[in-house]
Amino acid sequence: MAFSDAERAAMHRALELAATPGVPLGPNPRVGCVLLGPDGLEVAEGFHKGAGSPHAEVAALAEAGDEARGTTAVVTLEPCNHTGRTGPCAEALVAAGVRRVVFAQADTNPVATGGGETLRVAGVEVEGGLLADEARALNRAWTFAVENRRPFVTWKFATTLDGRSAAADGTSRWVSSPAARRDTHRLRALCDAILVGTATIEIDDPQLTVRDETDQPLPRQLLRVVMGERDIAADRRVLDGAAETVHLRTRDPLAALTTLFARDVQHVFLEGGPTIAAAFLKAGLVDEVVAYVAPMLLGSGRSAVGDLGIDTIADAFHLDVTDVTVLDGHDGNDTDVRITLSPAPAQRRT
Amino acid sequence: MAFSDAERAAMHRALELAATPGVPLGPNPRVGCVLLGPDGLEVAEGFHKGAGSPHAEVAALAEAGDEARGTTAVVTLEPCNHTGRTGPCAEALVAAGVRRVVFAQADTNPVATGGGETLRVAGVEVEGGLLADEARALNRAWTFAVENRRPFVTWKFATTLDGRSAAADGTSRWVSSPAARRDTHRLRALCDAILVGTATIEIDDPQLTVRDETDQPLPRQLLRVVMGERDIAADRRVLDGAAETVHLRTRDPLAALTTLFARDVQHVFLEGGPTIAAAFLKAGLVDEVVAYVAPMLLGSGRSAVGDLGIDTIADAFHLDVTDVTVLDGHDGNDTDVRITLSPAPAQRRT
Repeated sequence: MAFSDAERAAMHRALELAATPGVPLGPNPRVGCVLLGPDGLEVAEGFHKGAGSPHAEVAALAEAGDEARGTTAVVTLEPCNHTGRTGPCAEALVAAGVRRVVFAQADTNPVATGGGETLRVAGVEVEGGLLADEARALNRAWTFAVENRRPFVTWKFATTLDGRSAAADGTSRWVSSPAARRDTHRLRALCDAILVGTATIEIDDPQLTVRDETDQPLPRQLLRVVMGERDIAADRRVLDGAAETVHLRTRDPLAALTTLFARDVQHVFLEGGPTIAAAFLKAGLVDEVVAYVAPMLLGSGRSAVGDLGIDTIADAFHLDVTDVTVLDGHDGNDTDVRITLSPAPAQRRT
Repeated sequence: MAFSDAERAAMHRALELAATPGVPLGPNPRVGCVLLGPDGLEVAEGFHKGAGSPHAEVAALAEAGDEARGTTAVVTLEPCNHTGRTGPCAEALVAAGVRRVVFAQADTNPVATGGGETLRVAGVEVEGGLLADEARALNRAWTFAVENRRPFVTWKFATTLDGRSAAADGTSRWVSSPAARRDTHRLRALCDAILVGTATIEIDDPQLTVRDETDQPLPRQLLRVVMGERDIAADRRVLDGAAETVHLRTRDPLAALTTLFARDVQHVFLEGGPTIAAAFLKAGLVDEVVAYVAPMLLGSGRSAVGDLGIDTIADAFHLDVTDVTVLDGHDGNDTDVRITLSPAPAQRRT
């Protein structure tokens, strides 16, 4: 594989376009496309603005018009081969007379894969893999879900320094600081679904909506998922209509994730209590952990994590720290530490 | 109070001298001294090298010889007024004909205080308070101990992300990474005594020595303190003679600290288990907390902290985060997070 400097620069620009702020997430991947003329100069560009709107290649071709003929299309994802709400991009590129296609990430999504081959058969030069890691990172959850046929799971929990998520009398508001709670809403907004167990609904009665810095609900809400066999009492806030809610009557994390994947959920934000967290961890179905550690001690009370079936230190569940951030509160004394971790490969079912 | 630029610069130099690496810690404070001639230029300097060696002022006077007459002595601590293993510095300064004394931190130690007054009575100009905060920080534990008539207590604990210090079967080697264990020895070396309860001696049988990066014992060992009413079995490593060991047959943290203060201990490194940690926390006798958080989960097992008598979240023991450091292990996967905290003022007995 050989790529020109112009193609490399164009791919950087295409990645930038794909990551345009405000582009809705999920279920479609974020994609950017740049068309280069034979002289290596940009002819047109485009990016995907979310489900139902044109794919990045189609947007760029529309901007280029007749000038698309003979160009090189530089695109962050292998052009799709299927007819969804828009036509297949591979065919559109052939029809427009594009001479060469350079893509970053291969599309392994079964319904879309094969675009590269379609282009080759039609006589278009095709090269893949330029800045593929960057493109994969851009659509981390989408990539994971496509490759593993289940959503990516981020488990978030708030804990005291001594591992408690609630005091002995069950009170837990607030273990985490206002800064940590705002940060939680920021992370929720990057996901497609928020999942808790029926126990959390009973005990804490959370609303499970995504709110902004001023505590106003965002236009895009997540699917609220309650997992477990018990009924949800009619007065619970999760049934308030502020967002869609689904009750999965299962205790099996994999069954729950399979159901959600079929509903186009690619990124689950797991906020359940110790029992549901333990169930996902034991099943190897936690892909990322975000711990908000509050600078306080309780000495007793509810543990952040339930029984994992681990009896001895040699069997501990290991993780790798990927980020540590101190979240400063407004008054300076209200400082939580956010630790982000990846379960060690042996602890994940992928 | 007015200080010249030359005096301010000299005080910075004196602080630097006091902090000379390799100067033994405790029981004496670290002190530096600079003598300035009438032209503001340095005539001599000195610093205290540890108990039994000359005080900083005496060292500087010795270097200056006859040139000490008419100088300004700039010293990080108010000159002492007592005859310990060396004579009182206040008298030595007067005898040498020093014209003016500028000091940073006042010496409130009952056996040494009054040096400034002795100098004034003898006709020497005296000004205190220049860079006093820096001087106090230099001898944090000494300053604390002198002012509070008890040692400063640093409580160190190692915990998993979910607040466990041992697995269900009691195994705890190793909750913390090699990097965290090396860092612990570095912190131990800054203290005078290391304190655990009899339970830790029974369960973990630690040696409680200070070792270097290559696991060799350092020349200066801490006083090993075992607290509690039970006997220490003769085969325990704490009785191996590698350092002095004292058994305090009390369960009262304040009684233990009072005894240690009388033995010139100014900084205690508390490494006890959950029960002894809880006893010190409840008594308001923890001044600093160092938590090594290991990126692992256990789901069950021994808690890092015992019962604090806290029933509800509103009564949580609050702390302020003062530092967060990621300790990288050699293999990159063995990364602990060190969180240093100060108990909120209301939680401390000072």
